[in-house]
Amino acid sequence: MASTFGHLFRIATWGESHGAGVGVVVDGCPPRLEIHREEIQAELDRRRPGQSKITSHRDEADLVEILSGVEDSLTLGTPIALLVRNADARPGDYDEMRTKFRPSHADFTYQAKYGIRAVAGGGRASARETIGRVAAGAIARKLLARDASIDIVAYVKRVCDIEAEVDPSAVTRAMVEGNIVRCPDEKVARAMIDLIEATRKAGDSVGGVVEAVARQVPAGLGEPVFDRLEADLGKALLSLPACKGFECGSGFAGTRLRGSQHNDAFYPEAGRVRTRTNRSGGIQGGISNGEDIVVRAAFKPTATILMPQETVDVDGKATTLQARGRHDPCVLPRAVPVVEAMMALVLADHFLRQRALRAGAS
Amino acid sequence: MASTFGHLFRIATWGESHGAGVGVVVDGCPPRLEIHREEIQAELDRRRPGQSKITSHRDEADLVEILSGVEDSLTLGTPIALLVRNADARPGDYDEMRTKFRPSHADFTYQAKYGIRAVAGGGRASARETIGRVAAGAIARKLLARDASIDIVAYVKRVCDIEAEVDPSAVTRAMVEGNIVRCPDEKVARAMIDLIEATRKAGDSVGGVVEAVARQVPAGLGEPVFDRLEADLGKALLSLPACKGFECGSGFAGTRLRGSQHNDAFYPEAGRVRTRTNRSGGIQGGISNGEDIVVRAAFKPTATILMPQETVDVDGKATTLQARGRHDPCVLPRAVPVVEAMMALVLADHFLRQRALRAGAS
Amino acid sequence: MASTFGHLFRIATWGESHGAGVGVVVDGCPPRLEIHREEIQAELDRRRPGQSKITSHRDEADLVEILSGVEDSLTLGTPIALLVRNADARPGDYDEMRTKFRPSHADFTYQAKYGIRAVAGGGRASARETIGRVAAGAIARKLLARDASIDIVAYVKRVCDIEAEVDPSAVTRAMVEGNIVRCPDEKVARAMIDLIEATRKAGDSVGGVVEAVARQVPAGLGEPVFDRLEADLGKALLSLPACKGFECGSGFAGTRLRGSQHNDAFYPEAGRVRTRTNRSGGIQGGISNGEDIVVRAAFKPTATILMPQETVDVDGKATTLQARGRHDPCVLPRAVPVVEAMMALVLADHFLRQRALRAGAS
Amino acid sequence: MASTFGHLFRIATWGESHGAGVGVVVDGCPPRLEIHREEIQAELDRRRPGQSKITSHRDEADLVEILSGVEDSLTLGTPIALLVRNADARPGDYDEMRTKFRPSHADFTYQAKYGIRAVAGGGRASARETIGRVAAGAIARKLLARDASIDIVAYVKRVCDIEAEVDPSAVTRAMVEGNIVRCPDEKVARAMIDLIEATRKAGDSVGGVVEAVARQVPAGLGEPVFDRLEADLGKALLSLPACKGFECGSGFAGTRLRGSQHNDAFYPEAGRVRTRTNRSGGIQGGISNGEDIVVRAAFKPTATILMPQETVDVDGKATTLQARGRHDPCVLPRAVPVVEAMMALVLADHFLRQRALRAGAS
Repeated sequence: MASTFGHLFRIATWGESHGAGVGVVVDGCPPRLEIHREEIQAELDRRRPGQSKITSHRDEADLVEILSGVEDSLTLGTPIALLVRNADARPGDYDEMRTKFRPSHADFTYQAKYGIRAVAGGGRASARETIGRVAAGAIARKLLARDASIDIVAYVKRVCDIEAEVDPSAVTRAMVEGNIVRCPDEKVARAMIDLIEATRKAGDSVGGVVEAVARQVPAGLGEPVFDRLEADLGKALLSLPACKGFECGSGFAGTRLRGSQHNDAFYPEAGRVRTRTNRSGGIQGGISNGEDIVVRAAFKPTATILMPQETVDVDGKATTLQARGRHDPCVLPRAVPVVEAMMALVLADHFLRQRALRAGAS
Repeated sequence: MASTFGHLFRIATWGESHGAGVGVVVDGCPPRLEIHREEIQAELDRRRPGQSKITSHRDEADLVEILSGVEDSLTLGTPIALLVRNADARPGDYDEMRTKFRPSHADFTYQAKYGIRAVAGGGRASARETIGRVAAGAIARKLLARDASIDIVAYVKRVCDIEAEVDPSAVTRAMVEGNIVRCPDEKVARAMIDLIEATRKAGDSVGGVVEAVARQVPAGLGEPVFDRLEADLGKALLSLPACKGFECGSGFAGTRLRGSQHNDAFYPEAGRVRTRTNRSGGIQGGISNGEDIVVRAAFKPTATILMPQETVDVDGKATTLQARGRHDPCVLPRAVPVVEAMMALVLADHFLRQRALRAGAS
Repeated sequence: MASTFGHLFRIATWGESHGAGVGVVVDGCPPRLEIHREEIQAELDRRRPGQSKITSHRDEADLVEILSGVEDSLTLGTPIALLVRNADARPGDYDEMRTKFRPSHADFTYQAKYGIRAVAGGGRASARETIGRVAAGAIARKLLARDASIDIVAYVKRVCDIEAEVDPSAVTRAMVEGNIVRCPDEKVARAMIDLIEATRKAGDSVGGVVEAVARQVPAGLGEPVFDRLEADLGKALLSLPACKGFECGSGFAGTRLRGSQHNDAFYPEAGRVRTRTNRSGGIQGGISNGEDIVVRAAFKPTATILMPQETVDVDGKATTLQARGRHDPCVLPRAVPVVEAMMALVLADHFLRQRALRAGAS
Repeated sequence: MASTFGHLFRIATWGESHGAGVGVVVDGCPPRLEIHREEIQAELDRRRPGQSKITSHRDEADLVEILSGVEDSLTLGTPIALLVRNADARPGDYDEMRTKFRPSHADFTYQAKYGIRAVAGGGRASARETIGRVAAGAIARKLLARDASIDIVAYVKRVCDIEAEVDPSAVTRAMVEGNIVRCPDEKVARAMIDLIEATRKAGDSVGGVVEAVARQVPAGLGEPVFDRLEADLGKALLSLPACKGFECGSGFAGTRLRGSQHNDAFYPEAGRVRTRTNRSGGIQGGISNGEDIVVRAAFKPTATILMPQETVDVDGKATTLQARGRHDPCVLPRAVPVVEAMMALVLADHFLRQRALRAGAS
């Protein structure tokens, strides 16, 4: 169950970074949804390495094959299996890491947990695992678009100390895709790119924050008390490699306000109940209120850096590691489509769960 | 499933704030664990309203009854049902809220989702729902103590802008229980208490941050890729009323560091692999590494304030609400035992999952 | 999870036979369903001991209390907790069984599994555990009646070698409730009652078969490949105490026919696709086809008999057991409402799952 | 979740009979289990079509590829993805079935449920779907053999009216594999083969019963009350195509005995508690008691026969169908390895669940 996510729209991902390939099985996608291989591929292209000068130089086309569940571009209601073969695996890059644990990476903990690990490339802890998520997320987005007009956009909000001002209600995917760092503020984006390039040259890494918005979400999604919408979105994003923090709406900053400053006043507008502000981030009591859902995920700087580091080897002896390999100096630009995918998966699952509750025939 | 949490150590909570009572069923607790009613009661006493001048004045003894699953103070391996009757319900306090949605509360979203709601006291969205969590958490703690010597302590880290310096590796429960705000820094605690009292007098509310640490957690807990330990801890805390943010280890602040500054160097110590720093918060690759697990949860200011607020009524008309009732001006002191309980539930579940993986007879 | 059943309409039962009480939490029941305490009580009255001369003489009123999830006789969409206190527990009857395992009962296996057991009355293995199922089933039936007009009737088909001829498409609950053995064939019923009475006098027990039919089930319920409708119905009934066999439609007898004899020919009728025969028992490919769903459950003779039996004591020594206590010489009459409840729970769950799949807004 | 099975040892199968291929993801297999591709292939070879004159003539080598989760023939503790490409698909055989529903097949119900279906070969309702189960079952068997010495053997017990006498405690796989119908009684096997051949020539089909035994199962597996071992085994087998009945131990026949005749007397033997008879089929109170677990599954005659049949077309009009295609006149010989696989999956899952309950460190 460790690699299974969701209740009604459920996915199971599989695959190591330097094995035969990676993939996903989507179980529970409703039937007769139109989906084309190219639509899934387009999302994978946004995630793949080698897409720009600021990402890992591993050369993977990440071509996806639909193995089941779709006929004549329509879903059958049966499990959809998607496969991406690994191509440019270079296990030789990992010779040293075979015996030395990379600080702050998953090497040591996988060994401690399983007593064995796929050494090359981090195995299952590699960002390559997110391919299955992005592929499944592309299908979830189609469902959300067809049945609910829900629209999801993520973007790089901050890299290290460089932060962009973005209006979540107005940002478009075109703005995000307008530059390689995926920050909709062009000027700030250039500074981010410069920082990432300089960091790569230094053999170092940087982290930052991705912000995401889901618009036109109907009021009523979310299942208190445990499957509150923040809780499921939080789990979804915190399950991503390198993610160490999550917040919704005003988040940590909101805890510095008084209730009288923080509450979102209600007002009526065209038959709907609206809020004057959106410090709740579109979620109240764990349920969507119809306003934009706004969340943020904190990504730590990439653990694999190309500088000498103090560490321990598999025999428990002190040693020094000088890592090699092709790594992202900053995971954020490629994390953007992954965050969108996770958000789509959570919303699709909750959308179906809510549909089951409505009175009427099945 | 909305009110069910956990896989192997699984709980189902139930109950509205002004109904007959609240409770929980714990399914999957191992047999022959010693547990006394008084141990559960002691945790509930830390959570109950009316315990001090800075909490809600609702008078509830919150006496727990063990209905099943325990005989002669030993668990049977069968479901443990725990019941707490509601005593001091005053539905009359909620007459105005019957027709007017409290801003930033769950009134509107419950109505939007279910087309009906328990008006008095917030029903299921009330903090009273956490009684079942705390009761179940008391059992989880006993299991963690017996089989793994794991020790969990939470405390108020910040109220509004007043922040305490606390050493997670040294803090004790006695220090936390030393004052009514549950902040182990006595001097800061006094300032926090003053702020909360002033806030109550103003009819307003404040939020803040609870920090929690789990010590002596063995390396190896956590189930990538979706049930990463951060992800499950995050979901657990984000499922609490008023929680809008979560972070582990360095969290959001860590995203401002370079990888070379952020990585936790490994070194050997007495046959164990240790880290020199703990920016990972005891979790790497979603799996515990044997260091202290440190997390933080952001709680927004309580939504129910006693000042006039702009809102909408159930007929969709603009109106003004002047709330009444007995409310916490700050949820943090009472959130401390709840955070500990959720952490214990997550760790107990993962502890059992890890035990299942180990080779050997059942 | 052992005591949790269902996905969307999910129940968690709890309680030992001689503890404080038994009960259930229903999580996932849609909101605004009308349900009265008396409707649940009426089902429990059909299940309770002491209802006639051929059932156990234990005197339990089995009065149910609704603790949560219902307000003004309408479900809130939140968990519904139901409680029945144990009243007439006589632990003293079980003194001998405290040290000697009853043959073919659960005494030995509970001890082997958990290393501990609730000695009195079989604890969790007692038929008393089914109270929670029947109470939850009463709610499921209301949902099925409101949203799908589904109607469920079970009856005693055979006691030992005495078998009734019953037309599943025409049998009514009134016919079933017309006698204390719950067999709609009055003449056969009298013979069954005589056999059960004679068996009780001999200190012995008898088994038999319960048959059940669900009518007006829409085509399309069931979730291949694992949650096929037969599979979930089979699991539901095989999870009942004393149930050792299950079949759907032609079942075991159907395996003696040729395909040309067994297939159910399709024909059109008033815009619907119907079958001329119903050897499929209303389920094809694991999905309902709109015909009557017909299943049968085999109940072995009650294990607790009042004759001396060879057995082993808790120290592993050979001994003889002469059981005491108040037991059913035949579980079938009281199993009828339990079988109906399990069928209702399975159909309610699948009904909601199917509703989630239908295109359209949530 | 419809195509997901198991809790701790969990599988997700996917694939249509005439699509790109079929497969499975195994999530939760413990690490460091030795598994070779050839071991999985050997089980698939027992299941594949074209293996003898009495099975379908579809020519499929069913070669399995391990895509993830295994390195150097050791499991990593991560998901194991297995893929089998479809080779000899002949969709043209199904032209008539595109518009006409096969009686007693899944054509109509899939269409009713999903509003769409994979016409060729039955899609997901094809026996081809069981490839993933058999492949996963091969891994489960390795786990059971390594950690618990559990041994599973299934065999054809009856074809139509031809029944074999088999001693479950003594039957071996070699005896089962000694003939193409997989009945360990050679003389009866020949009669069965003759019947199946004659049936094929007539364009008709026959059903029957598969019996299976698991030996050396430790006492204590099974999780009352819903995940009783019979209940989970029953669900597992009833989820197989064409299975309409299940029984454990004495099953339906046992309901004709008195309790005094049916109970299995206990006696001590070499420090273990044994039973003199095994009418319980190795399971009491839903938990294994250490005796052989014996179950039976009823398989109806194959629905697809080559004789004209009355049916309805997709427009709801009466018509006649004359099916074509390559079909098994009797599914039983190929069902034997599938039944073993399902039994192994259930026992592996329960074995891990029981291991989690035992006191001690993880």
